Amino acid sequence: MSGGPQILTSFVPVAADSHFPIQNLPYGVFSRPGEPRRVGVAIGDQILDLATLGQAGLLGDGASTVFAEPTINAFMQLGPERWRAVRRRIVEVLRADCPVLRDDAVLRARALVPMADATLHLPARIGGYTDFYSSRQHASNVGAMFRDPAKALLPNWLHLPVGYNGRASSVVVDGTPVRRPNGQTKHPDRAMPDFGPSRKLDFELELAFLIGGASRLGEPIPIAAAERHIFGFVLLNDWSARDIQQWEYAPLGPFNSKSFATTISPWIVPLEALQPFRVDGPVQSPEPLPYLRQSGPAVFDIELEAWLRPDGAERASRLTRTNARHLYWSPAQQLAHHTVSGCNVSPGDLMGSGTISGPSRDACGSLLEITLNGSQPVALADGASRSFIADGDEVLLTGWAQGDGYRVGFGQAAGKVLPALPAAT
Amino acid sequence: MSGGPQILTSFVPVAADSHFPIQNLPYGVFSRPGEPRRVGVAIGDQILDLATLGQAGLLGDGASTVFAEPTINAFMQLGPERWRAVRRRIVEVLRADCPVLRDDAVLRARALVPMADATLHLPARIGGYTDFYSSRQHASNVGAMFRDPAKALLPNWLHLPVGYNGRASSVVVDGTPVRRPNGQTKHPDRAMPDFGPSRKLDFELELAFLIGGASRLGEPIPIAAAERHIFGFVLLNDWSARDIQQWEYAPLGPFNSKSFATTISPWIVPLEALQPFRVDGPVQSPEPLPYLRQSGPAVFDIELEAWLRPDGAERASRLTRTNARHLYWSPAQQLAHHTVSGCNVSPGDLMGSGTISGPSRDACGSLLEITLNGSQPVALADGASRSFIADGDEVLLTGWAQGDGYRVGFGQAAGKVLPALPAAT
Repeated sequence: MSGGPQILTSFVPVAADSHFPIQNLPYGVFSRPGEPRRVGVAIGDQILDLATLGQAGLLGDGASTVFAEPTINAFMQLGPERWRAVRRRIVEVLRADCPVLRDDAVLRARALVPMADATLHLPARIGGYTDFYSSRQHASNVGAMFRDPAKALLPNWLHLPVGYNGRASSVVVDGTPVRRPNGQTKHPDRAMPDFGPSRKLDFELELAFLIGGASRLGEPIPIAAAERHIFGFVLLNDWSARDIQQWEYAPLGPFNSKSFATTISPWIVPLEALQPFRVDGPVQSPEPLPYLRQSGPAVFDIELEAWLRPDGAERASRLTRTNARHLYWSPAQQLAHHTVSGCNVSPGDLMGSGTISGPSRDACGSLLEITLNGSQPVALADGASRSFIADGDEVLLTGWAQGDGYRVGFGQAAGKVLPALPAAT
Repeated sequence: MSGGPQILTSFVPVAADSHFPIQNLPYGVFSRPGEPRRVGVAIGDQILDLATLGQAGLLGDGASTVFAEPTINAFMQLGPERWRAVRRRIVEVLRADCPVLRDDAVLRARALVPMADATLHLPARIGGYTDFYSSRQHASNVGAMFRDPAKALLPNWLHLPVGYNGRASSVVVDGTPVRRPNGQTKHPDRAMPDFGPSRKLDFELELAFLIGGASRLGEPIPIAAAERHIFGFVLLNDWSARDIQQWEYAPLGPFNSKSFATTISPWIVPLEALQPFRVDGPVQSPEPLPYLRQSGPAVFDIELEAWLRPDGAERASRLTRTNARHLYWSPAQQLAHHTVSGCNVSPGDLMGSGTISGPSRDACGSLLEITLNGSQPVALADGASRSFIADGDEVLLTGWAQGDGYRVGFGQAAGKVLPALPAAT
C-alpha cells in the first residue's frame, strides 16, 4: 500500500533465519496427542491449523473439509487455481495488518499450534514414486566410476530425463529411523555372492516434487501444462546400498538397494513460493526433442546441504553443499517425459530429481562421489571420518531459497541408521 | 461322505470346460448398472455376490462388511486363516447338497448375478507393482538377442530373482483398450533419436500374485512365511514397447517402454485353489543362498496361452502355449527376496513373474522371442502375419490348471491396441 517495496510480514513472529516466513507457507500433516491428523501450514515455529480455519469459514467454499483429512491428497486434486486462491487467503489471514486471526485470541489459540507440540506425518498418500537421474555431474561421476570414464554419460542421457520407478511403500517422513538392509553382494574375487548387511550404505541428496491434479491414462501432459500438475517440492534422501546395487542392477535397474527406505521432508513447499527463485538451468545441447522443449528459466536456485552426525556426537559435520540449479533436466521436462507414453499420474505421486551434484567434490550429493567409492574417506568434526554411513549415524538434508530478507526453506529430512537385523534363518 | 473319491459339484451349473467350477472360486469386483462395486466369486457363468451373502449372515462374523467395498483389499488384509474360513463357507453354500442358497429362490435371485449382466473392475487397489524376470528361458533369449549370446544370462541371474518396480497407476483390467505409446527410439545408423509411435509393440505373458496381509518396514518376510502373504494369482500382460525400451533402459531399467499399460485378468484365483497343481520347478544350481532356500514343490502347473485377433478378423490365432512350471524362481522366493532388504508390502501389491517362456519358439511368452526381434514374422489365421502388434489387434491371455474332471481357470486378460495419439506439439 505504501510507497516502495517492503517485505510482507506476519503477525506471527518469524526469526530471521526461519525456513517458514509468510513467503513460504508450506503444507504438512500434523497431529497433537490424542487428536486426528490434519493439514496445516508452517509459519515461524507455529503450525496454522487449516482444518480449524476451514471450519471457521475463513478459507472460502470447498476448503472446509479437505484440510480435515489425514493427507493433503484431496487438496492436491483441486488444481492450481484453487491452490492459489487458498494460498492468497492464508497470506491474508496471517499478514501483520490483518486483524481477523491476530485479534481473535480464542480462534488464535485453536488455530496456531506450536510445532514443538505436534507430530509431523508423511504429508501425502504416495501412489507412485519415480526417481529421475537429472544431474549431469552426478551421472558423469557415477558413469566414470562404474563404467568407462571416457564415456561416462550413456548415449541416451543428453536426449531424455532418465528415470525409473522406485518403491512407494517405503517412503518415510523426516525422523523415521532407517534399518541398514541385508542383501546380496558380490566380491569380484569370489565365485559366489555373499549375504549380509550392506557395507556401502549411502545417501542421495535430491529435490522432489509431488503431483497435484490427476491425468488420464493414455493422455500425455504437454510440457507447457506440466507445471499445472506440480503441487510443490520436498527434500528427498534416496538411501542407497551401493554394494547391493552394483550386483543387482543389471539389466532392470536398482531394486533392493533402494527399496528399504526413502526419506522426505514433512513440509511441501508450494511451487508458487519458489517462483521468485527461478533460474536458467545448464544449456541443453543437443537441443531436446520438441516434446521436451521449454522456454524461460526452468530450474530453481535452492541451496542444498547434507550433514552427518555420528551416534552420540555433539556436532554434525557438513558433507556437501550443492544447489538445485545444477539440474540439467527440469521438473517440467521430467513430467512431460514421464507421461509422453500415456502413463497417468495422480495427486501424491512423488518425483525425485536424482542425486544433485555440483562441479566439485564437496558439492557432490552422495558419499559414493564424495569419497570416490570409499577410497578417500571424508573427515568429520572431532577426528572421525567416513567412507560410507556407519550404524548410529544420522544423515540430515536441508535446503532453502534465499530471498531478500527472508528464506523459503524446506526444513529437514533426517534419518538415523539402525544396525541390520540378524539374517533370517 | 460316500465311499471312493468323487468330484465336488455345485448346484450352479458349470460347463465341463468352464474356468470357474466350485474348485476354483476366484475373487473379483463387479457392478451392475446403477449399483456400487462389490466383491464376488465366479461360479460357472454366474457371480456369487459376497456382499449380499455377507449381509444375509451366511459368511460368518466380520465378513459382512469387507465384501461391500469396491476392492478386495480389506479382505486381503485379513490373512490366510480368515481366507480359508470364508472359502470353506462359500464352498458349503454352493455345493450341490446344501439347501441354504439352492432352495431359497429369493436369496438366490439376489445373490447370483449372471456374469453377462455385470461389469468387472480392477479387483484391487494396487499400491505397488513389481515385475520379476524369473523365466530362465526368457532371460536367456533376451540376453542372447541384445547382449552376448555366449553370456546370455547375466552373472546375478542364477543367484537372485531379478526384479524391478513397475508403474502401478497404469495397471488396467481385462477389456481396457491400450493406446500405442509415443516415445523416443534410436536407430543405430542415425545420430539423433526419433520420436513417434512405437514400432515394436509387444506383449509379455506373465502370471502374477497379489499380496494379502501387510508386512512392516524393516522386517523381512522369511521364505517359510512367504506364502501366507500370497492371496492369489492373476494373468498379467506386461505390454512392452521394445524400441523405446532398448534406447531408454540403461542404466536404470525400463520406464516409458512399459509404463503405458499393464493388463490383468479380473478374477484372483486363490492360492488354495492352486494347491493341487504344485510341481517341482527347474533344478536350482548353484544352490540359492539360505534366505531363498525352499523345500517341496514350489511352482504351479498352469497352462498359459496368448492369442491375437486382428481388427475385424473372425478368428484369433494362438501365438504361444507355455506353462508356469517353467519358472525358475518361485513366488515364495520372489517375495522373500523382495522383502529381505526390509521393504514392506501391503494388500493389493502386485508381483509379476516376468515373461514365461518354455523351451521352444512357439512356447515363448513374447513376440520379441517368437519372431526373433521381428526378423521372422509369425503366421496368423487367414494369411496375415505379425512381427509385432499392429493397431487394432486384440491380444488375449488365458490360462488354466487342469484337474481330474475340472479346470481351475483364470479367464482372460485381453486388450485391443488403439493407434497412437498425434505427437504433442
